[in-house]
Amino acid sequence: MSGNTFGTLFAVTNFGESHGPAIGCVIDGCPPGMNLSEADIQPDLDRRRPGTSRHVTQRNEPDAVQILSGVYEGRTTGTPIALLIQNTDQRSKDYGEIARQFRPGHADFTYHKKYGIRDPRGGGRSSARLTAPMVAAGAVAKKWLRAQYGTEFRGCMTHIGEQAIGFESWDHVPNNPFFAPVADVSALEAYMDALRKAQDSCGARLRVVATGMPAGLGQPLFDKLDADIAYAMMGINAVKGVEIGAGFASVAQRGSTHGDGMRPDGFASNNAGGVLGGISTGQDLEVAIAIKPTSSITTPRSSVDVDGRPVEVVTKGRHDPCVGIRATPIAEAMLALVVMEHALRQRAQCGEPGAAFPVAPGRAASERPEGLQASFL
Amino acid sequence: MSGNTFGTLFAVTNFGESHGPAIGCVIDGCPPGMNLSEADIQPDLDRRRPGTSRHVTQRNEPDAVQILSGVYEGRTTGTPIALLIQNTDQRSKDYGEIARQFRPGHADFTYHKKYGIRDPRGGGRSSARLTAPMVAAGAVAKKWLRAQYGTEFRGCMTHIGEQAIGFESWDHVPNNPFFAPVADVSALEAYMDALRKAQDSCGARLRVVATGMPAGLGQPLFDKLDADIAYAMMGINAVKGVEIGAGFASVAQRGSTHGDGMRPDGFASNNAGGVLGGISTGQDLEVAIAIKPTSSITTPRSSVDVDGRPVEVVTKGRHDPCVGIRATPIAEAMLALVVMEHALRQRAQCGEPGAAFPVAPGRAASERPEGLQASFL
Amino acid sequence: MSGNTFGTLFAVTNFGESHGPAIGCVIDGCPPGMNLSEADIQPDLDRRRPGTSRHVTQRNEPDAVQILSGVYEGRTTGTPIALLIQNTDQRSKDYGEIARQFRPGHADFTYHKKYGIRDPRGGGRSSARLTAPMVAAGAVAKKWLRAQYGTEFRGCMTHIGEQAIGFESWDHVPNNPFFAPVADVSALEAYMDALRKAQDSCGARLRVVATGMPAGLGQPLFDKLDADIAYAMMGINAVKGVEIGAGFASVAQRGSTHGDGMRPDGFASNNAGGVLGGISTGQDLEVAIAIKPTSSITTPRSSVDVDGRPVEVVTKGRHDPCVGIRATPIAEAMLALVVMEHALRQRAQCGEPGAAFPVAPGRAASERPEGLQASFL
Amino acid sequence: MSGNTFGTLFAVTNFGESHGPAIGCVIDGCPPGMNLSEADIQPDLDRRRPGTSRHVTQRNEPDAVQILSGVYEGRTTGTPIALLIQNTDQRSKDYGEIARQFRPGHADFTYHKKYGIRDPRGGGRSSARLTAPMVAAGAVAKKWLRAQYGTEFRGCMTHIGEQAIGFESWDHVPNNPFFAPVADVSALEAYMDALRKAQDSCGARLRVVATGMPAGLGQPLFDKLDADIAYAMMGINAVKGVEIGAGFASVAQRGSTHGDGMRPDGFASNNAGGVLGGISTGQDLEVAIAIKPTSSITTPRSSVDVDGRPVEVVTKGRHDPCVGIRATPIAEAMLALVVMEHALRQRAQCGEPGAAFPVAPGRAASERPEGLQASFL
Repeated sequence: MSGNTFGTLFAVTNFGESHGPAIGCVIDGCPPGMNLSEADIQPDLDRRRPGTSRHVTQRNEPDAVQILSGVYEGRTTGTPIALLIQNTDQRSKDYGEIARQFRPGHADFTYHKKYGIRDPRGGGRSSARLTAPMVAAGAVAKKWLRAQYGTEFRGCMTHIGEQAIGFESWDHVPNNPFFAPVADVSALEAYMDALRKAQDSCGARLRVVATGMPAGLGQPLFDKLDADIAYAMMGINAVKGVEIGAGFASVAQRGSTHGDGMRPDGFASNNAGGVLGGISTGQDLEVAIAIKPTSSITTPRSSVDVDGRPVEVVTKGRHDPCVGIRATPIAEAMLALVVMEHALRQRAQCGEPGAAFPVAPGRAASERPEGLQASFL
Repeated sequence: MSGNTFGTLFAVTNFGESHGPAIGCVIDGCPPGMNLSEADIQPDLDRRRPGTSRHVTQRNEPDAVQILSGVYEGRTTGTPIALLIQNTDQRSKDYGEIARQFRPGHADFTYHKKYGIRDPRGGGRSSARLTAPMVAAGAVAKKWLRAQYGTEFRGCMTHIGEQAIGFESWDHVPNNPFFAPVADVSALEAYMDALRKAQDSCGARLRVVATGMPAGLGQPLFDKLDADIAYAMMGINAVKGVEIGAGFASVAQRGSTHGDGMRPDGFASNNAGGVLGGISTGQDLEVAIAIKPTSSITTPRSSVDVDGRPVEVVTKGRHDPCVGIRATPIAEAMLALVVMEHALRQRAQCGEPGAAFPVAPGRAASERPEGLQASFL
Repeated sequence: MSGNTFGTLFAVTNFGESHGPAIGCVIDGCPPGMNLSEADIQPDLDRRRPGTSRHVTQRNEPDAVQILSGVYEGRTTGTPIALLIQNTDQRSKDYGEIARQFRPGHADFTYHKKYGIRDPRGGGRSSARLTAPMVAAGAVAKKWLRAQYGTEFRGCMTHIGEQAIGFESWDHVPNNPFFAPVADVSALEAYMDALRKAQDSCGARLRVVATGMPAGLGQPLFDKLDADIAYAMMGINAVKGVEIGAGFASVAQRGSTHGDGMRPDGFASNNAGGVLGGISTGQDLEVAIAIKPTSSITTPRSSVDVDGRPVEVVTKGRHDPCVGIRATPIAEAMLALVVMEHALRQRAQCGEPGAAFPVAPGRAASERPEGLQASFL
Repeated sequence: MSGNTFGTLFAVTNFGESHGPAIGCVIDGCPPGMNLSEADIQPDLDRRRPGTSRHVTQRNEPDAVQILSGVYEGRTTGTPIALLIQNTDQRSKDYGEIARQFRPGHADFTYHKKYGIRDPRGGGRSSARLTAPMVAAGAVAKKWLRAQYGTEFRGCMTHIGEQAIGFESWDHVPNNPFFAPVADVSALEAYMDALRKAQDSCGARLRVVATGMPAGLGQPLFDKLDADIAYAMMGINAVKGVEIGAGFASVAQRGSTHGDGMRPDGFASNNAGGVLGGISTGQDLEVAIAIKPTSSITTPRSSVDVDGRPVEVVTKGRHDPCVGIRATPIAEAMLALVVMEHALRQRAQCGEPGAAFPVAPGRAASERPEGLQASFL
């Protein structure tokens, strides 16, 4: 209710500040009996952690996760899973100056207006560092969804600044620091090098996809699957726009084009992006997000201080010239958390996908395959 | 939790189906002591109701709202406000044929997969008719926010299909059936006439704005103001994309351009769209949404029936060739409900905008004006 | 959040006032596909409705329920079930006098302090009349739990005032106006007749039981099954105490006596009242509640008015001399709503009772019988 | 939703197991700007911690609390306050034997039925050790309520086993290990010594009181203040009964006696226990709870193992012969958390106690004193 818990049935409560002793989260509602260890979570944390290339912030954080509770003899017990990540490379002296200033494009002013007090060290609570616990929680959701329904999540960068990045193959994504689906990223590297020299920052556009989706996930009026996806994505630091399926392109489409035809072997297209009436069709979830350029740049900007006096703000500290670069694993994690939440909601009201009333022996199982594809038989 | 209640502190529980006896909602959490009668709600309902021009569905519904509870001697009591709207012009015979078919682009298939049963009459629960109670609830929120903070909500259509509609003045919006901010809508009329002749439908793009926003509304990590706006907008029937402020244009912006400079007399620009770090800046909320073309068209479409057999679907019944036309008051209402929710949350945790700890006499009042503008003094 | 919705996954939103045009509720989260009609709900409403004997209020309300939504061709669709009950026998003139007075033992003063305004007609929102929609919602929960798990709910009166009522058989409960489990209620009738002559009121103690409980329902730390039962029972008008199992008697018990021994064929006793560690054991839920004497009596009482001036209050209108008499079906309904909520929560996190991870075909079914009894094999 | 978060606006998410590396909680929604340090929390933790007398478990835990987030330069920031308590004196070898057995009166069996897996070390999640983080969170709520409204919380033991403890003075409570309000506890010491020799355990009855309550806190139908108190108290380990005000004694009272008369200078009595219609009257909250005898005793008990085979269970490990002895600070904390939640809810919907619509300058302040007493002027 106060904006630090994501989800309800699979509820992730996030805590910490960028320069506090530690950050972390508590996952409540994880189904019991799933094998889980830090090794299931660390890889996704490593994908988003800082300091891995010259194109991202040079803050060096191992982001090593520790499971404090909820796992016994290697299996989830169904009780809260507390995850702790120590902060190790704070440099708070960098921020003393801006404690009384409002950085343009930052949350400094709004936190001041909301709370009357803020932790300015590294952006405090508003830092993108707080996405790390969500990536960790997302890894838990991903593992359960993969085992239960075969659902997989992946994302890539499609635009960096005004540069469109083509799509060659998902296989390239892990092989470059941009999560770009192309083999040759030399152009992107040159672009980023020039940007850093200009002491400026740029935006990015990402694509996030879920495959192997069960059909029937989502709610009728509110908490629609696409509404919750929009909520999750727009909640990621710096995101300013969200599209599902055809997105804004659907404005200029005709109904005869947009509406995805159906055939006995499946859908003929996916303008819907895997959601109709707020409920999953079983097709891939197709999501695109717009990420604004980093506000923290060393170019001087005109602003005011807490007394309303004009000041010139030069943001020191270590920052990402394009926050979009590290956002792919974050967006994947948030999408996984949304699907996880709705999978549990579906079990609550309707039983396992395809279950009838009353739940008949085996019925759920025999129906399940149906839930996992877009075929209608 | 099951997708039919919007909001938590100002919670609107929506019920009904397109062709049931009635639709309505229950508003829980409305502050007590506000003058309220049907006359405060009906005008917004009239703005969205069908049958008002040849460009929208010819279903004729008065959409007369009745207050069943929560108001005593003309003032809200703080207890639930139940609003009832009778359905009067159902023609369910139109839908008998598609009870066993899945209309492309519709929720027929997903409801079938989720619930194993659906009410096919007029789209049942998935009909845009269920937005009427939200418009009614939004009118209550609008009235309270106007009285408490001077906040106002308005919207207009900026694109219909591939046609861009310029912006001349808000004054034109009430004077044409498209909610277009231009004096001459003859081109739009001709466009819609041609579209109907082609038995097709088109999408639209809308802009929604809140002015007189208090600063400090929104939550830090989740339930960010922009995240909740995205959730509310994407939840409106047929919406496929949401932008806040610069939106997708921010991808190609530089940080030196995007970050809104601050001066003692206010912000220099509003690329943020009135939200920084998920919290309102006090500037106008600027939201844009993409609405897909209506799926219900009389052009035959290939689909399948509940047994997976191929069928040709021709959607009869009465439908909007562009659902975007009537969506403006809906989007305004949803935006008002989001702001209302966050205004109450802010009072809960931080007291009236600007209140300190402990709440000092008069302090809230002397601070309030500050909360209502983008100035910093 | 504002105190008018009960439950989360099976959420019942209650609205209306004692003398408004109508009262009702919206049930959100009911599993789809269950046969449901007014005939399933009316019998429980008839058990609690007023005017059925000389020992209860003479207000004559048919309490006829109408289903407005959520049911299609006789089956629940999984969308909100709106239930409406018209008020027909209001006599608001009876209450004009006490609009500015605070009746001792009533909510008049507290509503005034909370909201600064109240609907005084028949107690407005604080009237026990608002339990009718809960009885209706409880009937829906009862039907689902009976079909799904074989769970049954029943209650009886065990004390009226200082009179202890013995227990002979559940069979007697429907045969007398007191819900007393005894054949001869002449003593109770005489007791009530004398009480009315004395223009006074008395309290009562009720017992409520659930049989055929699945084991494993409830949460570990909060939302424990017994905690939610206490919440539900204490929330019933006039309830001042709640016990589970041995209740207050457990204070003087020894651990060697209280702890229910277990044998291969089941538990040796039920001091726990069917709950251990907040989770159901599969034994009967055993609940007892204390109901205070009706505050509305015609004996003059000293009080104050809204200006703080002393007044003598004589409560006119029609009231129950013992609200406990009609409370049995209410308590049953609230217990059913608690169990329903937890049954759906259990399905969400752990699947059907006994389901493993991942949910294996048939496993749920083969385990289910286990869930339905206290045997351990 | 999964039973590990208490409250909504002041939400405390609890994690950990008795023998895990650490336990703790995350407080979300704490008002900003309050001075807070570990020194504000530790004293209440010290009041409940084990090993402080021969009458309680000899497990020796310092229960030193660490604030991980949400406090900057000694003041709350309004963001989540994470509290961590390390476990230091686990002796898990004590529990190996009962990993496959169900201890009578314990949660072993129900956790097994619910989750299909449990952490048997020290009772795992079901251990009363998990009340420590709630005591810590309660200390934060107590501090805010004291500063904002002058509300204070205190409790004492009124019965231990069949021994009634008289009431002499609150001053005695801190001076003996039983939280008994009497000067001479030699009888209680003798009683407990005999009980330990008998290798048995006993129950207890506690009284918990809140003074300086604002009037108007609580909700109309559900989330009534007394309902939430019952929920909070019944959720404490081993609690089997809850009373508000006259409690079960009200069954035998007459309405002419029970209903608390009102005079210009205040209420004439407090049978209501400070709550009418679910909303606080401003009088003291009066709560009584029944605590069952500890289930962990060294006397052999008949039970079954996970395969349903009969076994003799002898519970080793270190346990409290009367869990009620350490329960007083726990009950105080839970009561404080309930009042805190409702104080924030009241601010959300109605503004500070007494605030009108629209909130007028100073009005809240001039009204506040009214909210803090039971006088009506």
